[in-house]
Amino acid sequence: MSESGINKRKTEHIRLCLTDQVEGVNKSTGLEGISFIHNALPEINFHDITLRTSFLGKTVQAPFLVSSMTGGSKLAAKINQNLAIAAEEKGWAIALGSTRALLESTAHQESFLIRKQAPNSPLIANLGAVQLNYGYGAEEAERIVEMTEADSLVLHLNSLQEIFQDEGDVNFENLLPKIEEVCKKVSVPVGVKEVGFGIDGHIAKQLHQVGISYIDVAGAGGTSWSQVEKLRSNDPLRKAAAESFNQWGIPTKDCLVSVRSHLPDVPLVASGGMKTGHDAAKAITIGADMIGFARVLLEAATESVESVLQVMEQIELELKITMFGIGVKTLTDLKETNRVEIMGKSLMEKS
Amino acid sequence: MSESGINKRKTEHIRLCLTDQVEGVNKSTGLEGISFIHNALPEINFHDITLRTSFLGKTVQAPFLVSSMTGGSKLAAKINQNLAIAAEEKGWAIALGSTRALLESTAHQESFLIRKQAPNSPLIANLGAVQLNYGYGAEEAERIVEMTEADSLVLHLNSLQEIFQDEGDVNFENLLPKIEEVCKKVSVPVGVKEVGFGIDGHIAKQLHQVGISYIDVAGAGGTSWSQVEKLRSNDPLRKAAAESFNQWGIPTKDCLVSVRSHLPDVPLVASGGMKTGHDAAKAITIGADMIGFARVLLEAATESVESVLQVMEQIELELKITMFGIGVKTLTDLKETNRVEIMGKSLMEKS
Amino acid sequence: MSESGINKRKTEHIRLCLTDQVEGVNKSTGLEGISFIHNALPEINFHDITLRTSFLGKTVQAPFLVSSMTGGSKLAAKINQNLAIAAEEKGWAIALGSTRALLESTAHQESFLIRKQAPNSPLIANLGAVQLNYGYGAEEAERIVEMTEADSLVLHLNSLQEIFQDEGDVNFENLLPKIEEVCKKVSVPVGVKEVGFGIDGHIAKQLHQVGISYIDVAGAGGTSWSQVEKLRSNDPLRKAAAESFNQWGIPTKDCLVSVRSHLPDVPLVASGGMKTGHDAAKAITIGADMIGFARVLLEAATESVESVLQVMEQIELELKITMFGIGVKTLTDLKETNRVEIMGKSLMEKS
Amino acid sequence: MSESGINKRKTEHIRLCLTDQVEGVNKSTGLEGISFIHNALPEINFHDITLRTSFLGKTVQAPFLVSSMTGGSKLAAKINQNLAIAAEEKGWAIALGSTRALLESTAHQESFLIRKQAPNSPLIANLGAVQLNYGYGAEEAERIVEMTEADSLVLHLNSLQEIFQDEGDVNFENLLPKIEEVCKKVSVPVGVKEVGFGIDGHIAKQLHQVGISYIDVAGAGGTSWSQVEKLRSNDPLRKAAAESFNQWGIPTKDCLVSVRSHLPDVPLVASGGMKTGHDAAKAITIGADMIGFARVLLEAATESVESVLQVMEQIELELKITMFGIGVKTLTDLKETNRVEIMGKSLMEKS
Ligand SMILES: Cc1cc2nc3c(=O)[nH]c(=O)nc-3n(C[C@H](O)[C@H](O)[C@H](O)COP(=O)(O)O)c2cc1C
Ligand SMILES: Cc1cc2nc3c(=O)[nH]c(=O)nc-3n(C[C@H](O)[C@H](O)[C@H](O)COP(=O)(O)O)c2cc1C
Ligand SMILES: Cc1cc2nc3c(=O)[nH]c(=O)nc-3n(C[C@H](O)[C@H](O)[C@H](O)COP(=O)(O)O)c2cc1C
Ligand SMILES: Cc1cc2nc3c(=O)[nH]c(=O)nc-3n(C[C@H](O)[C@H](O)[C@H](O)COP(=O)(O)O)c2cc1C
Repeated sequence: MSESGINKRKTEHIRLCLTDQVEGVNKSTGLEGISFIHNALPEINFHDITLRTSFLGKTVQAPFLVSSMTGGSKLAAKINQNLAIAAEEKGWAIALGSTRALLESTAHQESFLIRKQAPNSPLIANLGAVQLNYGYGAEEAERIVEMTEADSLVLHLNSLQEIFQDEGDVNFENLLPKIEEVCKKVSVPVGVKEVGFGIDGHIAKQLHQVGISYIDVAGAGGTSWSQVEKLRSNDPLRKAAAESFNQWGIPTKDCLVSVRSHLPDVPLVASGGMKTGHDAAKAITIGADMIGFARVLLEAATESVESVLQVMEQIELELKITMFGIGVKTLTDLKETNRVEIMGKSLMEKS
Repeated sequence: MSESGINKRKTEHIRLCLTDQVEGVNKSTGLEGISFIHNALPEINFHDITLRTSFLGKTVQAPFLVSSMTGGSKLAAKINQNLAIAAEEKGWAIALGSTRALLESTAHQESFLIRKQAPNSPLIANLGAVQLNYGYGAEEAERIVEMTEADSLVLHLNSLQEIFQDEGDVNFENLLPKIEEVCKKVSVPVGVKEVGFGIDGHIAKQLHQVGISYIDVAGAGGTSWSQVEKLRSNDPLRKAAAESFNQWGIPTKDCLVSVRSHLPDVPLVASGGMKTGHDAAKAITIGADMIGFARVLLEAATESVESVLQVMEQIELELKITMFGIGVKTLTDLKETNRVEIMGKSLMEKS
Repeated sequence: MSESGINKRKTEHIRLCLTDQVEGVNKSTGLEGISFIHNALPEINFHDITLRTSFLGKTVQAPFLVSSMTGGSKLAAKINQNLAIAAEEKGWAIALGSTRALLESTAHQESFLIRKQAPNSPLIANLGAVQLNYGYGAEEAERIVEMTEADSLVLHLNSLQEIFQDEGDVNFENLLPKIEEVCKKVSVPVGVKEVGFGIDGHIAKQLHQVGISYIDVAGAGGTSWSQVEKLRSNDPLRKAAAESFNQWGIPTKDCLVSVRSHLPDVPLVASGGMKTGHDAAKAITIGADMIGFARVLLEAATESVESVLQVMEQIELELKITMFGIGVKTLTDLKETNRVEIMGKSLMEKS
Repeated sequence: MSESGINKRKTEHIRLCLTDQVEGVNKSTGLEGISFIHNALPEINFHDITLRTSFLGKTVQAPFLVSSMTGGSKLAAKINQNLAIAAEEKGWAIALGSTRALLESTAHQESFLIRKQAPNSPLIANLGAVQLNYGYGAEEAERIVEMTEADSLVLHLNSLQEIFQDEGDVNFENLLPKIEEVCKKVSVPVGVKEVGFGIDGHIAKQLHQVGISYIDVAGAGGTSWSQVEKLRSNDPLRKAAAESFNQWGIPTKDCLVSVRSHLPDVPLVASGGMKTGHDAAKAITIGADMIGFARVLLEAATESVESVLQVMEQIELELKITMFGIGVKTLTDLKETNRVEIMGKSLMEKS
């Protein structure tokens, strides 16, 4: 696809994702099956609650990540800068959208170069894993890391997204050894993510065995790429086919439980349909270390730094209130709380 | 907060609670999971059914309590008087709203002084437990009891309510020893209650161990203070955050089961979302001794004694009909009935 | 209550029961939990299917009973005659509404005297069991049987109906020995029925032990008398109380299962919410011998014999088609079919 | 019924089936209880996926069958030709509607003679099994096969359809030995199908024992013949009775599971409510070899070959995408995948 073709597609993605029609139908993250058990006597001071933790070797003020979204156009530049300035101010981690454009054209390069706006945030560059079958390799990956001054590279697995794109790259054969090579040769930790259909424990384990440093599940229940491409496609066949996949994908909750049970210690990012700090708290109780937000930040990101900061502050407040509600002061305590009911089973009754 | 600030807030609470938007979303008491098994041959005379029992050492004509609502303003005075006169006439117990205003200002003191309207009813004074971290202690508590001529003092635990109030008192640290001190020094039995998010058995046990005489669960399924404060708040952040807590809280039914299993003998008040005598009957079968009603009485209380009496009579009639329907004449028999199905399990099939 | 008072009430009952507001809210017979397993190769001729069986010592052409509804007014006379002529023509059994009026006044006596219209149908007279506490006894019961030339007397148990009636007879004390006396002294078999809240196996067993010959469960899921009286009452208190009982009662399906498990052999009538021959088939598979229909026949009965016949024929056709669908020719085979799934458990998989 | 009577009925069937009112009410195929588990790392090339398989001794390019619909009228001729040309082009199998008309009249014979349009497709002739009780036998069956140049004859079992037709043939007695005779004497393999109420494993086994070569379950969840005849009937009785059967029938999923467990090796066609290639994939994972589509093709078939081709391509694309989504390249691998969750049980967790 031509460079301007990709640009056009990416801009359409943003436009469509600003509406609500891009979520799956009757498909949820599964987190509604988790609920907290109110602690009427918390015995803590709300002002003592802290969200501080670390990610990619850096301290973050909250366990939150701006998920990969964009780059490579004028609109993208604005979005990424608003996100970067806000991430730096709040102490969040931040990921770029696919940085392939960076290598393919010099236009809008600055849209990817947000290190100056976010000097201290953990910063993640992004590349489609399937590109390893289309001319990209460890060398190109390293160049991307260098240009973006990133702390990490995340490879996205997006098989169905490629299918529903009219001219997608659909040869996903034999990627594992190529991912291994990238992990070996690139100078920063390499993570892997989906784009909304989820990664389970079996796949996560294979990826970890070839050198992947962290898993971002990007599960189902939020943005659905079959829905996005259904709205975008002009091919009636592909449009109709996409429709029948509106419930596809592993719910984010199931991804987390599955990955955590296969890989007890690997850093785990919960993303896909995360909307509130309340959702974040639930994901943390079942094993997530960091929480990634994409679409919920998008509208604010097209507006201003202040708009982004407001959403970020709301998410942080919600997480803190949840922790206050059950009487825990730190994320470590939150991870170990038994004031939670998971799929109808109260952890309190165990003890 | 200034005295008139508190007054303004309390009046707004009343105004908002007269609408239906203050209940949680898709959140219920859980009592719909309990149903009675009709007894086609009751073998009793309806006119022999009695609701008489005792509470706080006094006889009540029904196991019913007007829950804490208000005080400290002109509107509050009217509400409390209507409730007190009706409670006396029907032989119900009655609780005052937070009596903190009583100590802080002489304005509207009479709104709390309802002993002359209810000379025989068990009367309960009320104070936020968190105030024990903000300058209040056993001495102030005793003064409140004396001024109100109350038979008991109930401390309310309202952590999340304070959070959602823009200028709330949010240091809930180390309250347990202070509650113990109050229990020891105050001359009347001290109870504890929540305000709509519920108390579970673990917390109840801790409270009982430091001297609390009875537990009023004030569980979820009725008035939700995150909803009330969402409606009231001017801070868009806090408003949005409150929204994500619209399902927070332990359902009243779960509170009752949990407290009763940890404390088989402590007097137990079921409240939070209680609307009918039918609800009352259900709560009694799972261990409640008394039933508290707040919001369901509010509208009538702003009108007249007669309006309050009418709601009270309806609730009593509903409880009596339920007892007739299963063929029991006394509350003791109701507590032990096996003509009840709890969460799909019929107690009749056991025997 | 004065005779004309009773008449007025009974006419109001009929008027209200012609609307659909008299059914419980979200309350069903439970029969939707039973479904048949289609037999693609029935190996029978549809025209060989027969519904013939016997009831009260007489042959009936179908296992169907016109349930007790009315008597004692001009409208009642019309209804009963239409029902009687149709029952005779189709070979159904038929029951009268409460025949108390027959003893209390000579007005409209003919409305109860339908033996000439239905010379061969099993005919059942009807009396409220509670009347045994209000001046009625075996002697009056026998007089009713004689006057109506009935094959049986059915006593109805209607505790909650009496409560919701503004001036009901609510002393249900000590009825069992009086029922025993009636069973002993009356010259025809005595049955017992509810009026829509159901009879369970425990009660049925007690009744059977004192001499009751058959049980008509009249369970919940159809006409609800708390709803009827809610609509009829002028007393706002009683109206509101009735509302909170809109889910009261043992579903017809549960009654049947419970009675059948306690009394394997007693003749068992399924009624309460029966609408189609399809419902009838389901009830038969769980143990019913006869099926009673009340409200579903009412509208037609106020019109003409032809209207009643049409409803009857539809019900018969539905039962026959169901039998054809699973490949059984007789009611005995239907009772023993394993082509049925009860509450998610397929009887076919057992064998 | 006269020949023109049958024609009129068949044309009405088509007209009604072009609307959506012919599906059962709250009745589904059950396939919604099956879902796939996304494979984020498929390790295959989309373009390597193949749907090729064989049926009735011939290679088909996809495991798809145009189910029996029509014949014997001008409209039928158009429909059958559009379907035949498209089936040939895509390499699908195709079945004719009931070929009884072929023997009874020479009018519109050409509507059944589609071998020239589909020289290579597996072609199936069709006859109602009940006709074996109404003058048809092996000889007539063989004549139909010869005239249509079919590769197989499928007998349809349609007891309830016949009942709801005002003048249906309802003697289904003793068909099994007659089916045996047809299987023995006809020169091509004989299959059996229902028409939308389903065949279970018990019946399937009996049929297989008398010589049936394959089972097409034609289960519930799609076109419902009680609904079709309800809409078509002029007899108010039959209309109302049909209504109470709107949930009748064994869901397609249950048929497949049941037949497959009784007959592990017999060729099995999934049909009844199949709408997408996604549905097809689900049916294959529980044992189906071929998938039959009727109503979903009907509208396109009344239009043009191109319209039919478009629906066919969409179905094929959906199946391929599903296979890509879980990372399998062949139907054999799809049958054995454990990336599927059936009724809440994940096959992945087994291994
Ligand atoms: C507008 C938009 C663009 C995206 N672009 C990328 C991308 O370039 N690379 C990537 O790995 N994921 C991309 N994603 C996927 C997100 O990172 C995330 O995994 C997914 O949207 C699920 O999260 P959500 O439900 O919070 O939106 C994009 C998402 C959105 C909404
Ligand atoms: C208008 C209003 C004011 C209240 N004020 C108090 C209060 O001052 N102190 C207190 O302990 N609870 C207070 N409550 C909480 C109630 O006592 C009760 O626990 C809660 O409303 C749940 O009961 P409900 O669902 O019946 O309303 C108040 C409730 C309402 C509706
Ligand atoms: C208008 C009307 C009048 C009734 N009158 C009597 C009666 O006098 N005696 C009696 O035992 N049941 C009476 N019933 C109750 C019915 O016999 C039956 O038990 C109940 O209505 C449930 O059946 P259904 O759902 O088919 O209506 C009456 C029902 C109706 C609808
Ligand atoms: C218009 C129409 C006509 C049909 N005619 C026949 C027929 O002649 N013979 C037959 O065996 N099935 C016939 N069927 C039934 C189908 O073959 C199929 O079993 C049934 O419609 C269920 O599949 P569906 O849900 O995909 O429509 C017909 C179906 C339709 C919609």
